[in-house]
Amino acid sequence: MSDSGRRRYTVIGMGAVGGYYGARLAAAGHRVRFVARSDAEHVRAVGLRVESPGGDLLLHPDDDAIEVHRDTTGLEPDDVVLVAVKTTDADEAARLLAPVVGEGTVVVALQNGLLVEQTLAEAAPGATVLGGMCFVCINKIGPGHVRHLDFGTVTLGEHVAGDEPAGVTPAVDAVAADLEAAGVPARRIADLATGRWRKLVWNIPYNGLSVVLDAGTDELMADPATRALVADLMREVVAAAASCGHPIDEGFVDEMLTTTEAMTPYAPSMKLDFDAGRPLELDAIYATPVAVAAAAGFAMVRTEALHRQLRFLEARARRR
Amino acid sequence: MSDSGRRRYTVIGMGAVGGYYGARLAAAGHRVRFVARSDAEHVRAVGLRVESPGGDLLLHPDDDAIEVHRDTTGLEPDDVVLVAVKTTDADEAARLLAPVVGEGTVVVALQNGLLVEQTLAEAAPGATVLGGMCFVCINKIGPGHVRHLDFGTVTLGEHVAGDEPAGVTPAVDAVAADLEAAGVPARRIADLATGRWRKLVWNIPYNGLSVVLDAGTDELMADPATRALVADLMREVVAAAASCGHPIDEGFVDEMLTTTEAMTPYAPSMKLDFDAGRPLELDAIYATPVAVAAAAGFAMVRTEALHRQLRFLEARARRR
Repeated sequence: MSDSGRRRYTVIGMGAVGGYYGARLAAAGHRVRFVARSDAEHVRAVGLRVESPGGDLLLHPDDDAIEVHRDTTGLEPDDVVLVAVKTTDADEAARLLAPVVGEGTVVVALQNGLLVEQTLAEAAPGATVLGGMCFVCINKIGPGHVRHLDFGTVTLGEHVAGDEPAGVTPAVDAVAADLEAAGVPARRIADLATGRWRKLVWNIPYNGLSVVLDAGTDELMADPATRALVADLMREVVAAAASCGHPIDEGFVDEMLTTTEAMTPYAPSMKLDFDAGRPLELDAIYATPVAVAAAAGFAMVRTEALHRQLRFLEARARRR
Repeated sequence: MSDSGRRRYTVIGMGAVGGYYGARLAAAGHRVRFVARSDAEHVRAVGLRVESPGGDLLLHPDDDAIEVHRDTTGLEPDDVVLVAVKTTDADEAARLLAPVVGEGTVVVALQNGLLVEQTLAEAAPGATVLGGMCFVCINKIGPGHVRHLDFGTVTLGEHVAGDEPAGVTPAVDAVAADLEAAGVPARRIADLATGRWRKLVWNIPYNGLSVVLDAGTDELMADPATRALVADLMREVVAAAASCGHPIDEGFVDEMLTTTEAMTPYAPSMKLDFDAGRPLELDAIYATPVAVAAAAGFAMVRTEALHRQLRFLEARARRR
């Protein structure tokens, strides 16, 4: 805890998510250390810029309470560590995480997919690990430059081994309160595993179909055929979650469809990764859920088919 | 029957299929009338050219027993009519068919998909209707110019209302014998409906995936992910056929996979249609099988998902 009484944050990764939420926390008075490989020099020179309907930000290490580091080696442990790197960098995230975790550190996985908290818990034994799911339309448009388009709620729940509901814990409440004070809507959930499956209800159809069909969410929703396919995929994820002991309320699929239709036209993160030639988060978003559901006796047939199309496209993109 | 004792043929459509099989029959001494809208002038001037590992052909209306017509109005009925237009032109095919069907005429649907014989039987009441399924790698590369790459077998069965097996009928035997004498391998089948489902085992995965993933059969088979998806789709078609009372022998899926792997790299017809901006045969190859299986209580989940992706891509291509 700093002298101001505010929790200090380390943000691993300066992609759209790390940049946006880290900047909001810094603007609210938290000391925020960013760990950013490629963006470090740019931010030291020019600052971290966020454009947002909720107010633009330009934070500079000389004037504001932000620091920029290229690595975590030699850094002290911090109160809260936000892990905001892609799940495709899991080994690197584990390596960066270890030095900044000490007694009482809360680690928050601001990542997509299933079993991501398990991975961090193994890398940081003894830490309190939260899952944070961002429902936000946000793009990184250049070094140290993030454009926030719409939404922004972070849903927070505490991870416990075995995926039982942990309840709304003090750590969840503390991080949620910090976010709210920084102007970021936060939801506290008692059951993280169900929350993760709910997030997949959106991620599985839109991420994959946007890549396979080279289309944004608006195009996918405007065509009755793909709208029906999105809905089928969503219902399949809901059924898989129920088979794994994480029932999702009826009506959630319709809510997701309606919310997405009302969104600013948007390219999901996997589409941006694909177009930029970056690795896709296929394990966390597709392979792991399919395997977890299969172990519970449920075959995610449509999801598996979409996953196989994505594997083909990613492998071909790597060859070209 | 002509003076030579050989059956006379009318071929409706001068795409790859009509051009190739019509040319083979003409070269074997049958009088063959082609009905070709856009190619008529070219063939009258230059002839019909077929390149094939089984021997090249160049047939000219002045020298050979071929005729080229732009329409069937005013033509006499013929012994056999091969319908070799896309199923997307069903109304036009019915209109062209009527004048050339008389007593004893045999109509052969050299078309893809399910229920295509029913459509022709309605357009030509009283005619004997056969289904002909071509297992052939063949491309039309220009007006009146067909390139035959590999294979060529035509599987023939007679259509009867209600889809019961008709047995190997005299009409099936007669057309098969003509094809064989023309150097085209022919298979006579007793059960056309099962034959149509067997053909879908190949058509459903390769046609759709080649369009959605912009890939040839060789690429789809070389990647383990898409090879597994192809196999899953094939097994789904086999299960659908069984639900509709048309069991397909175990081992057929493996046979199709192995045959396709051994093929010259090949773009399925739907891929060629898509790349050329032509309509796709989505009703005959996807919508109808899905609906027929659903009526029998079987959900073709993967096929339906692929169909919806294809609908999206076709609609977008039409808008662009």
